[in-house]
Amino acid sequence: MTKPRKIVLAFSGGLDTSVILKWLQLEYDAEIVTFTADLGQGEELEAARHRALALGVKPENIFIEDLRHELVSEYAFPVFRANAAYEWNYLMGTPIARPLVAKRQIEIARQVGADAVAHGATGKGNDQLRFELGYYALAPDIQVIAPWREWDMAGRAQLVDFADLHGIPVTKDKRGGAPYSADANLLHISCEGKELEDPWITPEDGAWVRTKSPEEAPDRPTTIEIDFVKGDPVAIDGEALDPVALLTRLNELGSENGIGRIDIVDTRYVGMKCRGLFETPGGTIWLHAHRAIESITLDRGEAHLKDELMPRYAELIYNGYWFAPEREMLQALVDKSQERVTGTVRLKLYKGNVIVEGRKSPNSLYSQDLVTFEEGGGYHQRDATGFIRLNALRLRQLGNVLKDVR
Amino acid sequence: MTKPRKIVLAFSGGLDTSVILKWLQLEYDAEIVTFTADLGQGEELEAARHRALALGVKPENIFIEDLRHELVSEYAFPVFRANAAYEWNYLMGTPIARPLVAKRQIEIARQVGADAVAHGATGKGNDQLRFELGYYALAPDIQVIAPWREWDMAGRAQLVDFADLHGIPVTKDKRGGAPYSADANLLHISCEGKELEDPWITPEDGAWVRTKSPEEAPDRPTTIEIDFVKGDPVAIDGEALDPVALLTRLNELGSENGIGRIDIVDTRYVGMKCRGLFETPGGTIWLHAHRAIESITLDRGEAHLKDELMPRYAELIYNGYWFAPEREMLQALVDKSQERVTGTVRLKLYKGNVIVEGRKSPNSLYSQDLVTFEEGGGYHQRDATGFIRLNALRLRQLGNVLKDVR
Amino acid sequence: MTKPRKIVLAFSGGLDTSVILKWLQLEYDAEIVTFTADLGQGEELEAARHRALALGVKPENIFIEDLRHELVSEYAFPVFRANAAYEWNYLMGTPIARPLVAKRQIEIARQVGADAVAHGATGKGNDQLRFELGYYALAPDIQVIAPWREWDMAGRAQLVDFADLHGIPVTKDKRGGAPYSADANLLHISCEGKELEDPWITPEDGAWVRTKSPEEAPDRPTTIEIDFVKGDPVAIDGEALDPVALLTRLNELGSENGIGRIDIVDTRYVGMKCRGLFETPGGTIWLHAHRAIESITLDRGEAHLKDELMPRYAELIYNGYWFAPEREMLQALVDKSQERVTGTVRLKLYKGNVIVEGRKSPNSLYSQDLVTFEEGGGYHQRDATGFIRLNALRLRQLGNVLKDVR
Amino acid sequence: MTKPRKIVLAFSGGLDTSVILKWLQLEYDAEIVTFTADLGQGEELEAARHRALALGVKPENIFIEDLRHELVSEYAFPVFRANAAYEWNYLMGTPIARPLVAKRQIEIARQVGADAVAHGATGKGNDQLRFELGYYALAPDIQVIAPWREWDMAGRAQLVDFADLHGIPVTKDKRGGAPYSADANLLHISCEGKELEDPWITPEDGAWVRTKSPEEAPDRPTTIEIDFVKGDPVAIDGEALDPVALLTRLNELGSENGIGRIDIVDTRYVGMKCRGLFETPGGTIWLHAHRAIESITLDRGEAHLKDELMPRYAELIYNGYWFAPEREMLQALVDKSQERVTGTVRLKLYKGNVIVEGRKSPNSLYSQDLVTFEEGGGYHQRDATGFIRLNALRLRQLGNVLKDVR
Repeated sequence: MTKPRKIVLAFSGGLDTSVILKWLQLEYDAEIVTFTADLGQGEELEAARHRALALGVKPENIFIEDLRHELVSEYAFPVFRANAAYEWNYLMGTPIARPLVAKRQIEIARQVGADAVAHGATGKGNDQLRFELGYYALAPDIQVIAPWREWDMAGRAQLVDFADLHGIPVTKDKRGGAPYSADANLLHISCEGKELEDPWITPEDGAWVRTKSPEEAPDRPTTIEIDFVKGDPVAIDGEALDPVALLTRLNELGSENGIGRIDIVDTRYVGMKCRGLFETPGGTIWLHAHRAIESITLDRGEAHLKDELMPRYAELIYNGYWFAPEREMLQALVDKSQERVTGTVRLKLYKGNVIVEGRKSPNSLYSQDLVTFEEGGGYHQRDATGFIRLNALRLRQLGNVLKDVR
Repeated sequence: MTKPRKIVLAFSGGLDTSVILKWLQLEYDAEIVTFTADLGQGEELEAARHRALALGVKPENIFIEDLRHELVSEYAFPVFRANAAYEWNYLMGTPIARPLVAKRQIEIARQVGADAVAHGATGKGNDQLRFELGYYALAPDIQVIAPWREWDMAGRAQLVDFADLHGIPVTKDKRGGAPYSADANLLHISCEGKELEDPWITPEDGAWVRTKSPEEAPDRPTTIEIDFVKGDPVAIDGEALDPVALLTRLNELGSENGIGRIDIVDTRYVGMKCRGLFETPGGTIWLHAHRAIESITLDRGEAHLKDELMPRYAELIYNGYWFAPEREMLQALVDKSQERVTGTVRLKLYKGNVIVEGRKSPNSLYSQDLVTFEEGGGYHQRDATGFIRLNALRLRQLGNVLKDVR
Repeated sequence: MTKPRKIVLAFSGGLDTSVILKWLQLEYDAEIVTFTADLGQGEELEAARHRALALGVKPENIFIEDLRHELVSEYAFPVFRANAAYEWNYLMGTPIARPLVAKRQIEIARQVGADAVAHGATGKGNDQLRFELGYYALAPDIQVIAPWREWDMAGRAQLVDFADLHGIPVTKDKRGGAPYSADANLLHISCEGKELEDPWITPEDGAWVRTKSPEEAPDRPTTIEIDFVKGDPVAIDGEALDPVALLTRLNELGSENGIGRIDIVDTRYVGMKCRGLFETPGGTIWLHAHRAIESITLDRGEAHLKDELMPRYAELIYNGYWFAPEREMLQALVDKSQERVTGTVRLKLYKGNVIVEGRKSPNSLYSQDLVTFEEGGGYHQRDATGFIRLNALRLRQLGNVLKDVR
Repeated sequence: MTKPRKIVLAFSGGLDTSVILKWLQLEYDAEIVTFTADLGQGEELEAARHRALALGVKPENIFIEDLRHELVSEYAFPVFRANAAYEWNYLMGTPIARPLVAKRQIEIARQVGADAVAHGATGKGNDQLRFELGYYALAPDIQVIAPWREWDMAGRAQLVDFADLHGIPVTKDKRGGAPYSADANLLHISCEGKELEDPWITPEDGAWVRTKSPEEAPDRPTTIEIDFVKGDPVAIDGEALDPVALLTRLNELGSENGIGRIDIVDTRYVGMKCRGLFETPGGTIWLHAHRAIESITLDRGEAHLKDELMPRYAELIYNGYWFAPEREMLQALVDKSQERVTGTVRLKLYKGNVIVEGRKSPNSLYSQDLVTFEEGGGYHQRDATGFIRLNALRLRQLGNVLKDVR
């Protein structure tokens, strides 16, 4: 590979990416462009600017952008239309955010004429894939630098030494034992490491940061209504909200009511199992509500097909294949199903529980006439005889063959 | 069809099947054999004997059996190995019980030389399929009688009139407005009808009968450990329990802690949507525990394959295809995956929540050495470079073609 | 049901539908509207008009239309984009034509104010489903009349008697033993019945009507090139052809070269197995050509996803679910994949063989640089080490657990 | 990694693996154990012994074994039970042979106390994966050496130079331009490289080596019968044959009749597309015969489930995951379906065509009574009315909602 001249770095302003910034300057003697995104992680982004300036990045090479709207409307919305969850219940807060950052990095690289991109994900995790598969799909010839896989620093202690050596400030909590490893955005916060590395051990209270525990949550339930239009949530309790405001509100409701904590061992794409805690308060409410509105607006054929394909869709996104064409094919299938997913769901939130209490829709496929115990609604019970007899025909043929066996 | 001489009726002893018994006697002039199964529904079965005798059934034609062990070990166990849930979260308490009854009816029919079987399921629901597809698969030439699809009685009022006319006692609650429609066994209880027929209305408290509400559940959590061997639960808190005792104990734990209620609109095989409440207290704990032990003992390839096929497996069982060969094929696949699913899960039960706190196994695929942030465990971060580059190769080729488009 | 006043009948003008026409007049005392479609079956449609007039149908109630263009462009094109084949190799000539007829019947019913539709398919086959599921999906409240399931005529002899009684002309071949049962359109011709009912017997030569046998085909191969644009064929040997002309030309090429015969036992939706011969000369060439152009233009992720879903897509269409929403979801997925399926395929046709000899595309994902044995094309063989090691990681973890077992 | 002391090399005795043998000796200063398998590739294996001895391998370190029986009965049989084909029609002759070699290498490594294994596959292909994923699954801690990814020789010319330098004989055909790259065993022979690298070019005649062309094949057809027992072929024309003899005979029949050639572009697991010719004469007959016997012995539910999972099963094997647990799960599913796949198929072989003419089975699910046009067989046409009406119910509900749209 040729030596890169200009590198766009995904830069949080924290210890790791500050060290990376310095290391890139030293190792590659290249011009560094920093990109810092507000994804709703709840950190002060201007600190990243000061840190970048302090490390010698030119002001015109510092990009700080609020991507929250795009994160929710272009990434979370499509994923929740699919009811996507990886390995049953992980709502993929991190996997949906990385490709958005990757896409913006590539766009900035084109804008500033950079020939390389870099990120701060380690060589053991999934995030390197989510960044790099995005980079390569969007810019096949871009040079990709993943310092954690290149340098010789093998752990946090060496990182701190490097920072001290180069005058990079290190906050006190980074100096002692390794902290939890976390990733946060508007959809979720994750937590790995420390005592969690033993999957038998109960997490310490401090591992949970975004939600109240069910025990601490209020003793009285909160009831809300969520409106959906074509598969996406648009209002809470009748108040129309833009995507960011809506997810923010759901997060407040979920956090307050102890909703959205999971403690799982999942399997990374690189092959190892990892135990993590994930808090997705608003997303958890959203998933229940979306499933509930689908339950009256989706035909069985639609709903079952989506459900069968969901694990693969989720796996693709978890593994970093947001920009793969098969993800887009599945998205086309999912989106096709959402045209009539419009209506309202009423939920009770209580100490960790999301309890569906009611759902209604102008497109409802539910028919009270059909379902009633009494005759009616154009349904003829005797039709069921033929329905059963023909569905049974193949089983009867087989039964005749098996007669001597069973 | 020829007129049946001897009919084995699935007989609960309640109003409906008592009316059916009488109607069969009148309509077919046939000898009736009653079969009443203890599936853990919590009813006094000897009452069914007295009712049958009162209706003129010969003592030797009355079969009452405790099928609870078979229900749990031969039906619930295989289904929970698959983590099966219909339309996301219905744990199929009814669908797994009907085929067992059908199977025993056929066996009894052979034993007593009967040429027909009958059941009390209506022509609008799924249960007729679960009974009859079982009958036909196991006895292709059996005659099947489904009185609800044959007679002219169109609703409950006429049923009560018929009972009164023929001296069949009718309890007071059957006389007024229609009660909820319910089905119960050791795994669950279902509830449909009345105000539930409007899916926007919150269920009345009386609709829930087997579990405390989360609000009523104790303010202090209960922590338990469940041991699994080859995919099946075998002990609670270290105490080995036979399948029935184990599920009974899980039910007590779940019921007490407000666990296992769902309120859903599902789509029946006959095509209509129906709103129902389901209480599966023990099963809900079981599912969470099984998923947790799988999370450290199943390889990713195993786990994801199971998850992709689960919706179809559940659909088959929900629709009544327990005895279909494709269900058995899927079962063979699922069972193959469970050979190493052995270990212990620790759970906290609290006001509707099943919180996984720890999992351990002699067959654990989790490796702390691999996952640690620091180098180690035989994992080389630089391997990830090649892994990513080759996984990206196809995306880069495609990206080159798309260059002008994107 | 209310008695229908006006019925739109799918009318071929042959014996069966002539009898049906008469029977409907007698049985329902209703006004009959006939609809006869040119689907490329190769019959004189004006004969149908004369027959209808002779049976008393008013001239304004006789609809005869050429649907060939719509059949190819709106039904065959989407299906071949999916490479759809039922039970491995049945190219579904009949299943794609029935829904088109059903759709036009419903449109005509609306136009003329009819309240019922009727068709001539028997109660044992798939076609009744393909008609009626279409009717019901497009006009939920339409009344559907399927005379073969209603009248008491149980076989061909009674049909001939009825015809004789009512002065309907019966051709000689219908009088003797039952003929083959056939269905033809521009895509295929099917043949069932007579000696074919024993699946061990070799078909008589007369059972094949549209293609030469491989033995009779020319001793010299024919080489052709087919151009595709976005997944659909548009030209043969450089000559742009509209869909009907193109399929007609492919049929000539296939028929001449002994291509497209299959002899299969397939399983009908109503549950029974049936042996049939199908001749799809042009479609068979088309399928091979489409697969070949996809092989260089589709990414692996796209191609494999399509292939996994193809059997279900084909099953839906075979079973009559053309207008079901899950078919449309799958179509959206398939169509999404075809945007870059543009290019040219060269084929050798020879005595039953379709031999792909070459394929090229402006969107080709094939790279000679990458594939060459020598280094080059930006591919680094050492990347494969990491690729393999990380793909092996989970297998190694599992291998460690299995060590004592294997 | 520690330096290996003893290496088991998959050794064909050809130029490549001879060079590798020498290189391993020089590079690792290790004791080399050669393993040469007779897989039916049609080469003289004793030549490999002489070559190994000449390169200094100790006689007791030379393993030469006939694995043909195991190849057919333990690898080809299970794969053909699944009707497995990668990307539509590649019958995977190479992918099923590599894991068998890998398994024996590991067994020999254990027997001789070796700590490493090596193979001669390049870093661009799939075979490295088929070897190494096998090694790692069966021996997680084995050291794997893939010389093509390690040394600096980048192409054939350098290989020849190395051979000349170390006195390894080089046949004339290896000296000129690169030959085709081929792999052969009892199931197939593959051909890649040279003019095939342009996917638009027609292969030269010399690229096909195992089969006559359809043009050259006899002008008279050959008719054969194949007997299957539980999914596997056991006899041809009534003569019971062991697996190797049976496949050998099928190969002769196929080769003579111009059967089993394909010319495809497939996508390797490492991401690139590659054009190859494959000749699988016996396997092609086998596949058609197996599908034909399944067509009358498999229930629709079984057959369709198998077909939907087949592409994934084939992909796993193609990619090298023979020993992955999900392959074994799928195998359990497939094998479960084959218990009744017993019977006889009659085929006509003619100039590239495999024409199924008849099939029969003691377990046949085909019923002439059911299928006949006339009433009979216990099938009631009027049952179809209820069957259709209930299958249509959900479409009608949806149609009502869509009324304003369509």
